[in-house]
Amino acid sequence: MMITGEHFIAGERSKAGTQQFASHNPRTRHDGQTQFAEATAGEIERCVTAAQSAYAITRHMPAAQLADFLDQVVEEIMALGDELLQITDEETALGIPRLTGERARTTGQLTQFAGLLREGAYVEAIIDTAQPDRQPAPRPSIRRMLQPIGPVAVFSASNFPYAFATAGGDTASAWAAGCPVIVKGHPAHPMTSEYFAHAINRAIEKTGFPAGFFSLIQGSSVAVGQTLITNPGIAAVGFTGSLTAGRAIYDAAAARPTPIPVYAEMGSVNPVVILPGALAARSADLVEGLVGSVTMGTGQFCTNPGIVFMMDDDATAGFIDGVVEKMRETQPGVLLNPQIQQGLSKAVSATAARQGVENLLGGHELDTPACGYAHTVLKTRSDFFRADHALHQEHFGPVTLFVLCESADDLLLTLNALEGNLTATIHAETDEIEAAGALLGILREKVGRLIWNGFPTGVEVVYAMQHGGPYPATTAPATTSVGMTAIKRFMRPVAYQNMPDALLPDALKDANPLGIWRTVDNALTRQPLDG
Amino acid sequence: MMITGEHFIAGERSKAGTQQFASHNPRTRHDGQTQFAEATAGEIERCVTAAQSAYAITRHMPAAQLADFLDQVVEEIMALGDELLQITDEETALGIPRLTGERARTTGQLTQFAGLLREGAYVEAIIDTAQPDRQPAPRPSIRRMLQPIGPVAVFSASNFPYAFATAGGDTASAWAAGCPVIVKGHPAHPMTSEYFAHAINRAIEKTGFPAGFFSLIQGSSVAVGQTLITNPGIAAVGFTGSLTAGRAIYDAAAARPTPIPVYAEMGSVNPVVILPGALAARSADLVEGLVGSVTMGTGQFCTNPGIVFMMDDDATAGFIDGVVEKMRETQPGVLLNPQIQQGLSKAVSATAARQGVENLLGGHELDTPACGYAHTVLKTRSDFFRADHALHQEHFGPVTLFVLCESADDLLLTLNALEGNLTATIHAETDEIEAAGALLGILREKVGRLIWNGFPTGVEVVYAMQHGGPYPATTAPATTSVGMTAIKRFMRPVAYQNMPDALLPDALKDANPLGIWRTVDNALTRQPLDG
Repeated sequence: MMITGEHFIAGERSKAGTQQFASHNPRTRHDGQTQFAEATAGEIERCVTAAQSAYAITRHMPAAQLADFLDQVVEEIMALGDELLQITDEETALGIPRLTGERARTTGQLTQFAGLLREGAYVEAIIDTAQPDRQPAPRPSIRRMLQPIGPVAVFSASNFPYAFATAGGDTASAWAAGCPVIVKGHPAHPMTSEYFAHAINRAIEKTGFPAGFFSLIQGSSVAVGQTLITNPGIAAVGFTGSLTAGRAIYDAAAARPTPIPVYAEMGSVNPVVILPGALAARSADLVEGLVGSVTMGTGQFCTNPGIVFMMDDDATAGFIDGVVEKMRETQPGVLLNPQIQQGLSKAVSATAARQGVENLLGGHELDTPACGYAHTVLKTRSDFFRADHALHQEHFGPVTLFVLCESADDLLLTLNALEGNLTATIHAETDEIEAAGALLGILREKVGRLIWNGFPTGVEVVYAMQHGGPYPATTAPATTSVGMTAIKRFMRPVAYQNMPDALLPDALKDANPLGIWRTVDNALTRQPLDG
Repeated sequence: MMITGEHFIAGERSKAGTQQFASHNPRTRHDGQTQFAEATAGEIERCVTAAQSAYAITRHMPAAQLADFLDQVVEEIMALGDELLQITDEETALGIPRLTGERARTTGQLTQFAGLLREGAYVEAIIDTAQPDRQPAPRPSIRRMLQPIGPVAVFSASNFPYAFATAGGDTASAWAAGCPVIVKGHPAHPMTSEYFAHAINRAIEKTGFPAGFFSLIQGSSVAVGQTLITNPGIAAVGFTGSLTAGRAIYDAAAARPTPIPVYAEMGSVNPVVILPGALAARSADLVEGLVGSVTMGTGQFCTNPGIVFMMDDDATAGFIDGVVEKMRETQPGVLLNPQIQQGLSKAVSATAARQGVENLLGGHELDTPACGYAHTVLKTRSDFFRADHALHQEHFGPVTLFVLCESADDLLLTLNALEGNLTATIHAETDEIEAAGALLGILREKVGRLIWNGFPTGVEVVYAMQHGGPYPATTAPATTSVGMTAIKRFMRPVAYQNMPDALLPDALKDANPLGIWRTVDNALTRQPLDG
């Protein structure tokens, strides 16, 4: 496929802007040949207008038709072939095996949403039937279901060029809801975005979907994103990225004359607690598992285990030595881009300079042509950690910080000082269940996902997944950006009172023509209503 | 009961502030004898600290125990006797029959939430079982449910001193979720708030609940509310009231270092469309129904039908004459307080002065000792309405505005110009179903509830109710403040990965000890897990 550096605006290519940027190879630090343009205000306006026109059609579409579209997108992504993997590897250095897996996750996600749509219960149909004889006044029939919210702006993440990007989880769940999507491509992988846009446009053409159901705008400036989300035609925002960028988007959306929801997933330090019994029972496995989780993907996961809490004793000292040794032996990867390298370098230097922090390994950029950072291990004490909020910050890369506690009570107190996180993990043995329960009681208030004897990296795309958590992990702790319930972010309930059957959506009709599960007069059923 | 003018801070009475205000009788315009104090910053801090302590207990409580508390609150409210109705009538002029009905709705709401808790499916348990043999890596077990969000601040509304106040829908749904509540009482009915606080405290004592599960602070200043919601210990806000106040609270909460959700229901113009066939078939009934809905409760409902869209023809002219005549004949009620009277007076005068607006009836305060406003009918044309955003504003009182349209297309165009609303209503006959369908397609995007051949006042407390809608009707269109799903506002999902059964909440345990409906591997079931 020929890369042109153009935006895809409702099926039409466009490149009106004069400000440009290039793709960048983090292994060679060379720019690619194609120049990508920053989207202009006029181009963004055209995307939104087209999305609104598309929405007038797609908001009435049967779920099965939306499901067919998702299936077609999967087909077109696969039709891009392994050329896609090569292109993405060039601009992300994530490597072919990881990208192959991520592509499977991305297409699997679309397929799962198609399944959710065909099953149909996701609209949460609730019917309270009329009670014409109720005194003092008859009770009307009230029927409620979820319906789409409107055009959605999605910001691609740098660290998942497929799964949290152009046709990633935010886009898939918004489409599944019936919402058109305008993707702001991440400037760290513009070629990949263009490949995906090409595939998506083919799916739109083949299924006869309205062209404005998808647009891609490229840009490396803050202005492009701000112009998009402050457009009155945008109804919601999906974002995965840094706290700084996410908060800026949240603030801009909240300050609109008509505020809109922002579903920003902004990363996390993902506390891991290792209790003494677990350490005694399986120290070598824990070294292996922790180092694997910290260094996987060059540490560039939202679920990277950034802080490890342990007891301050000899066993822990030996364990940390083991982790340092294993981290030292492990071949460092390449970081996604120079911005991440600079940000990581600055963040680690700042932490290492705080009172009470020891730098046990790394703590510097690698002396290689590629964007790299040494595997880094830091250590501090619980009292320093509690007293210094600077130690709670995320280091986005292959870095972990050990926090050593004096006692079980000290550990509880220290965990209580944590902010919101995506995950928390406990390693414990069977005879430590009681102690672990007390820790879970505290951690439950801080996170979206609690993990037992595992590691936080690796987010399963299942119905029950909760990839979210209290601020600053996200701006919307009641929602998830991974898993099937992610669709709820882009829907809102509408109730119908005494509406004739002919005017009700299929999900709410007497006969239950979709055969879906509904809550009728407080009981779940797939039966039609009586006569 | 003796009214003292004190706050109820976690079971203790307090009155530290020096700034005071009195209850006011809108019929006589006389102040009551008791002085109520503005809550101080110190008092507010004590409420929040107590709420956090209570939350550490209530967040682990079985749903059945929370249900017992709600039942006890009902008992204690009824034990206040009809003295409560007298007191509230004195400070609101709503009348004993209406207040008797509202009390029944309020206790019924609490009872229904108790039922929801005992049924148990509201936690939305979802279980995806482990797949130990999956390649390339085993799939962990992931189980997810809703859990409480933390201490909640609730702002009482003036127009529903029971149902949207101290033990109203926001409080009931937050309690049901397991969240402690701090109520900011409305200054227009401080005696009523004190009565309720007394009853709630008795329920807390009798059930042995932690005292901080409820506090009441009184106040008439903006500062009291702002101090409350910017306290870092508050996790969410429920509010019913004006757009100005609701937006100020939303803005303050969004600007916090840790932003929190604000569920503000801020009123609405509740468009009503009357199609020609309906008018021809049942003009007299429509006059009766519309006037009843506009003047009920002196027009002080969020669901008051503020704007009526009709065709500009002779039949409509006759209908409007009928409405004017009926409104003139109907005895005006008393408004809740002088602030509402002044606000209404200002809003109607502003609208009546806009280009193209005719004042057909009323448009002035009543020349009586009581707080009153004349029944008012305004009229304009669709082109004026579309061109002038000032005509879209709510008049909180017994006022309605007719907007006359030239054609079916003109009507569609005009409805499309509406902002977010709580409700929209269509009156049509069977042979107008197709035209009505086109209108519904537009109105569905604007509102939370669509009503067929009825009137928007009267909000049923049922599972399927959606009392919400796009901004400016609310700040959170994906939620409702009435009906059983209101509980979701105060919960957030938490996922458990590979967690031992002993550490799982009952709702997620293998044996399903609560016997609730759960989604297990994508299928709804009440069965325990195999093996």
